[in-house]
Amino acid sequence: MITEITVRVNYSETDQMGVVYHANYLVWFDRARTELMRDTGLTYKELEKQGVYLAVSDVHIRYLAPARYDDPVRIRCWVRELASRRVTFGYAVEHAERGTLLATGETALLSLTHQHTLTRLPDHVRALLQPAPDPVRL
Amino acid sequence: MITEITVRVNYSETDQMGVVYHANYLVWFDRARTELMRDTGLTYKELEKQGVYLAVSDVHIRYLAPARYDDPVRIRCWVRELASRRVTFGYAVEHAERGTLLATGETALLSLTHQHTLTRLPDHVRALLQPAPDPVRL
Amino acid sequence: MITEITVRVNYSETDQMGVVYHANYLVWFDRARTELMRDTGLTYKELEKQGVYLAVSDVHIRYLAPARYDDPVRIRCWVRELASRRVTFGYAVEHAERGTLLATGETALLSLTHQHTLTRLPDHVRALLQPAPDPVRL
Amino acid sequence: MITEITVRVNYSETDQMGVVYHANYLVWFDRARTELMRDTGLTYKELEKQGVYLAVSDVHIRYLAPARYDDPVRIRCWVRELASRRVTFGYAVEHAERGTLLATGETALLSLTHQHTLTRLPDHVRALLQPAPDPVRL
Repeated sequence: MITEITVRVNYSETDQMGVVYHANYLVWFDRARTELMRDTGLTYKELEKQGVYLAVSDVHIRYLAPARYDDPVRIRCWVRELASRRVTFGYAVEHAERGTLLATGETALLSLTHQHTLTRLPDHVRALLQPAPDPVRL
Repeated sequence: MITEITVRVNYSETDQMGVVYHANYLVWFDRARTELMRDTGLTYKELEKQGVYLAVSDVHIRYLAPARYDDPVRIRCWVRELASRRVTFGYAVEHAERGTLLATGETALLSLTHQHTLTRLPDHVRALLQPAPDPVRL
Repeated sequence: MITEITVRVNYSETDQMGVVYHANYLVWFDRARTELMRDTGLTYKELEKQGVYLAVSDVHIRYLAPARYDDPVRIRCWVRELASRRVTFGYAVEHAERGTLLATGETALLSLTHQHTLTRLPDHVRALLQPAPDPVRL
Repeated sequence: MITEITVRVNYSETDQMGVVYHANYLVWFDRARTELMRDTGLTYKELEKQGVYLAVSDVHIRYLAPARYDDPVRIRCWVRELASRRVTFGYAVEHAERGTLLATGETALLSLTHQHTLTRLPDHVRALLQPAPDPVRL
């Protein structure tokens, strides 16, 4: 299962080089991951209500081509790996019209309690987060 | 009493017009307000521990001249008005070397409980937040 | 003419009070204003290509109720006033499902050349930016 | 040579988990890298004036412990590797008082012309960016 969202680059996301500032890709990843969770039927909001917090523990991003103001940008997100207390998501960022690959990324998230201690991902959550093969080379 | 901080404009704060994106001034105001509180002897962090939350209810900003990448920027902050459940801060943003006035602003903050209901500012807090005359015309 | 967009509150927009950090409303305003321009048939991107830059000169925001994580939020945007070198936009921010008014705002933008000097808004641009009556009390 | 900066966590950087949102570390890295450049005697601002742009091409961050509101945070930055058209920086993020290691990171930057094509780092720039051994394990 691969979730796909499209965002429009806002002025606030550009920098004086005339491209999207690199930190903003992490927010796009977050938006895509949130929609992937929603697509599974269990929103991240509901997961927190059940006492499970997912905290980012590892980030890797490779930037291939710049995104520019007002570009429509598609972010695809999928589960790469699932462990007992960790889930890893993959991302591909593309120009939504031209299809150019702009960036790829990966984030690992740890399952925490409200007190920030590691906890097993509940089985009903693990069942929803099935890994998919990478659609692009990360 | 007027508190003064200096920040250095970071690349992340610029936009493709080559100037600081306007929303970032609110973060500078927040930084200055936090230091004003620290200067009174009661940090905002400690205030929250005492169960008092200050939530921004009104913002006004006037932009006079752009701030640019790597500019040293001075933000002055002071209390403008104090009411039983509200405190209003004033701000002046200047180029730290040239002294040019870049922006002025005002934010009103309401005193809330953790449950987001209005509450009186405790007397010991009110005693610390004494209004000062505007050092610049807002 | 009133333009309407809907955004979903992302985790990055929340703060430790559990609500949307106040500066983010300016980014929502920007997104709505960009879509209003697109709706007129002249995107802001195209306007910049024609050598006209709109720089925010005045901001006013009133916060009425907090927006929270994962809330669907509707932002309505319209032209309030049009002068020879300035255009003022109004904004209403609402919970997209419950309809609660969360915030109102206004931003004035000045028409600048690429060299940041004031310039008249071209007639074909002025013709597109017709003021509308406020749909809510600002 | 290792450059060190200290920042104070602002409310705008926190999220509803009560910790610093993960994307903000990239801004801290940027601030530290900017000061490292300044320490070499050639600011990044001056480098851009000379026609050389450094664009982030690769990011890796490992988060070890959360940073919280009002924490003083120290970021150390150094050059890890220098190639003809690429420079890689390392980062260590620590609680400035307790010394706890909060995160480590690495960013690779490519040397570009104003037209966004790859270009060799000029010799006088390469001479300033001498790699240092990692002070912590990345």
